[in-house]
Amino acid sequence: MKNKIKPAKGKLGVLIPGFCGAITTTIIGGVEGIKKGEDKPIGSLTQMGRIRLGKRTEKRCPLIKDFVPLSELEDLVFGGWDIFNENLYESAKKASVLDRPHIERLKKELSSYKPMKAVFDRKYVKNLSGSWIKEAKNKMELAEMLRKDIRDFKKKNKLDRAVMIWCASTEVYIEESEVHSSLEKFEKGLKNNDPLISPSMIYAYSSIMEGLPFINGAPNLSCNIPALISLSLSKGVPLAGADFKTGQTLMKTIIAPGMKARMLGVNGWFSTNILGNRDGEVLDDPDSFKTKEVSKLSVLESILEQEKYPQLYGELYHKVRINYYPPRGDNKESWDNIDIFGWLNYPMQIKINFLCRDSILAAPIALDLVLFMDLAKRAGLAGIQEWLSFYFKSPMHAKEVYPENDLFVQLEKLENNLRHLMGETLITHLGKEYYENTAA
Amino acid sequence: MKNKIKPAKGKLGVLIPGFCGAITTTIIGGVEGIKKGEDKPIGSLTQMGRIRLGKRTEKRCPLIKDFVPLSELEDLVFGGWDIFNENLYESAKKASVLDRPHIERLKKELSSYKPMKAVFDRKYVKNLSGSWIKEAKNKMELAEMLRKDIRDFKKKNKLDRAVMIWCASTEVYIEESEVHSSLEKFEKGLKNNDPLISPSMIYAYSSIMEGLPFINGAPNLSCNIPALISLSLSKGVPLAGADFKTGQTLMKTIIAPGMKARMLGVNGWFSTNILGNRDGEVLDDPDSFKTKEVSKLSVLESILEQEKYPQLYGELYHKVRINYYPPRGDNKESWDNIDIFGWLNYPMQIKINFLCRDSILAAPIALDLVLFMDLAKRAGLAGIQEWLSFYFKSPMHAKEVYPENDLFVQLEKLENNLRHLMGETLITHLGKEYYENTAA
Amino acid sequence: MKNKIKPAKGKLGVLIPGFCGAITTTIIGGVEGIKKGEDKPIGSLTQMGRIRLGKRTEKRCPLIKDFVPLSELEDLVFGGWDIFNENLYESAKKASVLDRPHIERLKKELSSYKPMKAVFDRKYVKNLSGSWIKEAKNKMELAEMLRKDIRDFKKKNKLDRAVMIWCASTEVYIEESEVHSSLEKFEKGLKNNDPLISPSMIYAYSSIMEGLPFINGAPNLSCNIPALISLSLSKGVPLAGADFKTGQTLMKTIIAPGMKARMLGVNGWFSTNILGNRDGEVLDDPDSFKTKEVSKLSVLESILEQEKYPQLYGELYHKVRINYYPPRGDNKESWDNIDIFGWLNYPMQIKINFLCRDSILAAPIALDLVLFMDLAKRAGLAGIQEWLSFYFKSPMHAKEVYPENDLFVQLEKLENNLRHLMGETLITHLGKEYYENTAA
Amino acid sequence: MKNKIKPAKGKLGVLIPGFCGAITTTIIGGVEGIKKGEDKPIGSLTQMGRIRLGKRTEKRCPLIKDFVPLSELEDLVFGGWDIFNENLYESAKKASVLDRPHIERLKKELSSYKPMKAVFDRKYVKNLSGSWIKEAKNKMELAEMLRKDIRDFKKKNKLDRAVMIWCASTEVYIEESEVHSSLEKFEKGLKNNDPLISPSMIYAYSSIMEGLPFINGAPNLSCNIPALISLSLSKGVPLAGADFKTGQTLMKTIIAPGMKARMLGVNGWFSTNILGNRDGEVLDDPDSFKTKEVSKLSVLESILEQEKYPQLYGELYHKVRINYYPPRGDNKESWDNIDIFGWLNYPMQIKINFLCRDSILAAPIALDLVLFMDLAKRAGLAGIQEWLSFYFKSPMHAKEVYPENDLFVQLEKLENNLRHLMGETLITHLGKEYYENTAA
Repeated sequence: MKNKIKPAKGKLGVLIPGFCGAITTTIIGGVEGIKKGEDKPIGSLTQMGRIRLGKRTEKRCPLIKDFVPLSELEDLVFGGWDIFNENLYESAKKASVLDRPHIERLKKELSSYKPMKAVFDRKYVKNLSGSWIKEAKNKMELAEMLRKDIRDFKKKNKLDRAVMIWCASTEVYIEESEVHSSLEKFEKGLKNNDPLISPSMIYAYSSIMEGLPFINGAPNLSCNIPALISLSLSKGVPLAGADFKTGQTLMKTIIAPGMKARMLGVNGWFSTNILGNRDGEVLDDPDSFKTKEVSKLSVLESILEQEKYPQLYGELYHKVRINYYPPRGDNKESWDNIDIFGWLNYPMQIKINFLCRDSILAAPIALDLVLFMDLAKRAGLAGIQEWLSFYFKSPMHAKEVYPENDLFVQLEKLENNLRHLMGETLITHLGKEYYENTAA
Repeated sequence: MKNKIKPAKGKLGVLIPGFCGAITTTIIGGVEGIKKGEDKPIGSLTQMGRIRLGKRTEKRCPLIKDFVPLSELEDLVFGGWDIFNENLYESAKKASVLDRPHIERLKKELSSYKPMKAVFDRKYVKNLSGSWIKEAKNKMELAEMLRKDIRDFKKKNKLDRAVMIWCASTEVYIEESEVHSSLEKFEKGLKNNDPLISPSMIYAYSSIMEGLPFINGAPNLSCNIPALISLSLSKGVPLAGADFKTGQTLMKTIIAPGMKARMLGVNGWFSTNILGNRDGEVLDDPDSFKTKEVSKLSVLESILEQEKYPQLYGELYHKVRINYYPPRGDNKESWDNIDIFGWLNYPMQIKINFLCRDSILAAPIALDLVLFMDLAKRAGLAGIQEWLSFYFKSPMHAKEVYPENDLFVQLEKLENNLRHLMGETLITHLGKEYYENTAA
Repeated sequence: MKNKIKPAKGKLGVLIPGFCGAITTTIIGGVEGIKKGEDKPIGSLTQMGRIRLGKRTEKRCPLIKDFVPLSELEDLVFGGWDIFNENLYESAKKASVLDRPHIERLKKELSSYKPMKAVFDRKYVKNLSGSWIKEAKNKMELAEMLRKDIRDFKKKNKLDRAVMIWCASTEVYIEESEVHSSLEKFEKGLKNNDPLISPSMIYAYSSIMEGLPFINGAPNLSCNIPALISLSLSKGVPLAGADFKTGQTLMKTIIAPGMKARMLGVNGWFSTNILGNRDGEVLDDPDSFKTKEVSKLSVLESILEQEKYPQLYGELYHKVRINYYPPRGDNKESWDNIDIFGWLNYPMQIKINFLCRDSILAAPIALDLVLFMDLAKRAGLAGIQEWLSFYFKSPMHAKEVYPENDLFVQLEKLENNLRHLMGETLITHLGKEYYENTAA
Repeated sequence: MKNKIKPAKGKLGVLIPGFCGAITTTIIGGVEGIKKGEDKPIGSLTQMGRIRLGKRTEKRCPLIKDFVPLSELEDLVFGGWDIFNENLYESAKKASVLDRPHIERLKKELSSYKPMKAVFDRKYVKNLSGSWIKEAKNKMELAEMLRKDIRDFKKKNKLDRAVMIWCASTEVYIEESEVHSSLEKFEKGLKNNDPLISPSMIYAYSSIMEGLPFINGAPNLSCNIPALISLSLSKGVPLAGADFKTGQTLMKTIIAPGMKARMLGVNGWFSTNILGNRDGEVLDDPDSFKTKEVSKLSVLESILEQEKYPQLYGELYHKVRINYYPPRGDNKESWDNIDIFGWLNYPMQIKINFLCRDSILAAPIALDLVLFMDLAKRAGLAGIQEWLSFYFKSPMHAKEVYPENDLFVQLEKLENNLRHLMGETLITHLGKEYYENTAA
């Protein structure tokens, strides 16, 4: 396996729909600072994480980036599309994720980035409107315009490879339909302006056609349709999604496995959020919230496996609320109340209050995904990359298996996939060897 | 392996130092209710848990108790020692873990249990005093009295096997010393009344000598000394400990692995507790608290691995406080404030408020440990059972390896050990098979 | 003043629309227990409160019930109307405010109470439906049926006096309109079945016509319309409302005056609630929630006086959410996040988590209101009783003055009104007398 | 009264022991910013507060500073003593209350302030040590050195008047003793170096002797002894103290009156704090903590009046903990759990989490006290100023009366004293006039 991975040489393009949003400015601002040695890539497994190899007594625990061949931050070249025509210095000030002195320090670097015109349709994101938008007769033409943008960007920046990562807003809820069922129907739909083809699907299609791994950071259906999955397999392109796992859902996929590990029952989980950024505004629209809600609700079901543990989780009442609350800006705050019960049904309560920062949590995982997906491409992997479930609220998975939402199973899956890729022994934590020699 | 496990037939004795305490009455009250079909063993992995076998697509997920040969609850016979001579109905009323109507419902069963005289010395638990205490010339004689109690109990109840589980109070802090270093020195110390041999060591010694697996539910040094470990190996007796992982530390070993999985930095973790039960009273003594504090503090260090991640955890300030607060009784409440930092060092905060019930969380894990340790004995395992780390704040482990405190690594270790014991494939979560066939 | 108050002799009827609801069963269950000496009237100012009279050095601090002439609990006779025909023992079990052994203890007393048929129209409370409902040609006839119920109840129970207190559900939002502007138009509307006359107005009209003080425990417009206020003045009947001040709003009227006292700015106040009782179900209907929301939102405005303190409160973003969450039943839980700022605009946060019990908080204030309103009637007071603002989320007040929502101003108003009624000196807390003599 | 108040003309000196501490730099930094129009005096009643005069219908509600004759901020001249010889720019950076860009903006102004040598003795504040300290044969000589400092400062800065305000650390616990009982004994003690005379007493004595009003911002006994109270009366000097009411205790005196107003029982109040500033370090010494604890514990007793309400507050278990936790710096965080009970003894819980900033809360009340105490002096008031209880955790009060700790009673006391001073009608909130005219 190890020998088949192509080296990570040359420039790697990172193409981002939602280029002027809070996440992008945070990633790029960060990467620029890190390259200058002023900042640290906290939260990034590829940059800071280590991986245990072999037995505990061997004490082999290299940095992941020294273990698998990843692109260097120096080789990343960022670009993207947005509906607002502004440079990233302006965007960063609006987003106000980074504090003001920090933005000023990066003014020169951020000012040099500008978006390409976006593919956008307000029907899919009702609470936003912008003017920096591509116009064309039909969706296929829009796809061709995006594909040309990609080729031009690669050429202009002398890129060796590129990856596309969706960091734009949540679209309204769309169910998988006929038009998504095969490539043929999908391409016909593009030409016919089928309303069930959303902008994020047009981006995904363009990305795959140009051979770029595609990552879906929002809960949109996007690339997760038979038409695009089969296209990705035939084109040898990896796919990953959906919905960056940050904040409250991250906590949920940490806590819920803990409750289940201990066979503690859960009969209520109430989650509320207050946030005041553009994301909050978009999600104030019930149709966009629907898409998010489905993504957020599903994690508990699949972690707790109600059908296997009806006495513990059969009565679970799970409610998720998101409240637009401007005083907070990007500093989301979540509050969870978990009603659990233990031995002989005695009730207990856990309350979690998370003063988090959405884009600060999202940026390093977006970076990791870009680097791992480029690795996947070089390693010849195509289609759904389930081993990257770790990063998503609604991980893409093969039809015949249930998704793994447990953060810790996801981490082990990721690590064992890396070990497997590099020909190392998988770790099972059996650990009998440390005790057998000493037995009488 | 599987063929070597002796069947779980006949009666299994459960011998408990701290017989009239909150945990014991909760276990026994519960087991009696469960046997009558009135209550459910929520929180018990052996009774309610399932284990995935084979591939996800195989959908094999039996109950653990149907997978490995465990004793039935009907075969358990409880007995033990305490410093208060009262029946368990009285004890349950004092403990007030179970609510009053519940206790009344179990009055007949609980009233029938009475403790044997305890080995006790107030030097080791300063805030308690009792009168139902064995007297002897030296600690060796006390051990012999305990061993006789065990043999008499087995005989009287026609037991096939027995297990001892320490559910008594936390003793004052003792460091491993010369007298603990070999069996010879230890036995000499017993005869000489060496002050570094605490009551919990005398119980552990007696248990091992009689061939009973020994479980240490408190943070006391107890059986975790070279003298007793080597004795357990030569006698073929399994050991497990220390300190039942409940409440706040349980949450810590759930949350901390989550932070580390995501490479989020932690620079402060403040934990405070309020509780009003006998445990709270005992821990109001600084010497007993010291023992507990060491146990509670160590989990973060070993999970976060400060030496490997100095930029993330090198500055961690960890503080644990326990406050005796009578209005709460057994209903402990904990509050944790976790100061974390992410991408580019931006700070975030997590606050966790856990309205828990200590004994309700402890009872099912005590039950699991009894059943698993009996299984271990029948499977020919001896000495430290690291695969049961899952249940402890300070898991016993081989000298040459670090302990695993991550609840999720502990769970996988436990499950893979069960799979191994029964000859099933270990699970690595690699999961490539679901995707390879579909590749182009 | 004092001499003009008629004595509180004879029986006092307490007539309650919403007779089988959680509040009523809690009041009646409580009063029965208190009369038997088994329970205590915690939370009731009339039963447990004391009032300081004269100077601090006089140490005169009698119980309020010894200071002003109130009815004895022994003299109360309860009755009322409901849309469910069940006895209060059944209702109490459904409401599950009191715990089960407590309800069983009161079984005999509670079982003896049954409701009269209610005036009800589902248009005004969409999420409820019942079958124990009066039928008539028009609303005036319904009023006459209620008036006959009142007269019959007084006669049958040999009552000296009676009070009506609305403990039924929140109706949909209605604005004050033409039909409410005068008694003449209102009575015409009753005959014409005007849709802007809701059931709670029909009850209020009937109450006033029969000379019963009327108390409005819900946020409905109800008696707070010119037609009924002028009728109450001409009939010599006191009115009080609206919306019992319990739970989260109670906390708000405690905290907000504290912030304002200290001139601390507030730029955000987010309040969310989870509750699972019938109230929660009713408020899941947006139209009923609207009525509640207006009541809940207004308190901050009037306490903080944004127009006088634009720099402190001009930007306040106030959001209130109520979430139906069945796992909690009547045990409401609220969470408030308050974003404040101090000296030089530095931000701070206050978070309040209140595990409360709605009906437990409401019952004693309903009792107090009944007793004080009966006192008011005997003292010759008529129309709006602003001095009882203390008990309400949206206190009724004269058109020309702003309402007092500050709990502490309300308390002083209440106490000084009692002092005034009994001819005692009003208290100003000037307190110069304790220092003047000692001056040089 | 009004005519007797001398006008506030000329410069007013503000002399501060603890000159380089967090509070002082915050006050001075703020006042400098406010004078330049860049900042706002949020939290200051004298600068932003309004006072209602007359009836609600009169709508007279002037700013307090337009109602009573106070010094202008332009006329304040700051000076003081400290044990560290550093300018306030350096101090502000250490304190890190103000953020860094803010401090830089004020660099010029802050750098110009330097402390005089302090009177200090490590016996009274064990966790601090400094080198900028006066030396003398005895405490009387130290007092004379301070008095000379005062006279020199007034002369050098051409001051009309001055006020002294203690902003230094909490001293160890001292009980009132013989040496404090009369001026004669006290002055003898000064000469004899009596160990029961602490530095804060020497400052207070010097202040009074020089005619400066003295304000005690810490819980030290300080000026609250018969010797100094009688001296202040004979010298015509006002006194106020003790212990600025900020953070958790502020919240306590807001919440507790609310519980009592509603006659809700309280059986437990657990308060814990985490803070990482110098104050936290000082209070890590048990002797200093004792002084603070007495101050913090007493407020509940006097607000709840256990002796009058034994059924509600007789069993109250009140515990206060302060934890030094460096990750937080000056940003103190408190957590309160309040166990309350209502109607029929049903339990409820209130949990309050306050992310506060100690010095941000203290600075404006220090400013208010300086201005009000100067007003008091000009109005001829001497001795204890109980009307300023509003600002203190342990308000000074006449021996024969209990202290008022209820924040809202304190506010009314303050306001009615201002109204009285200016000849306005006192407000009682009786409010009958708005309803009497309309009665039939």
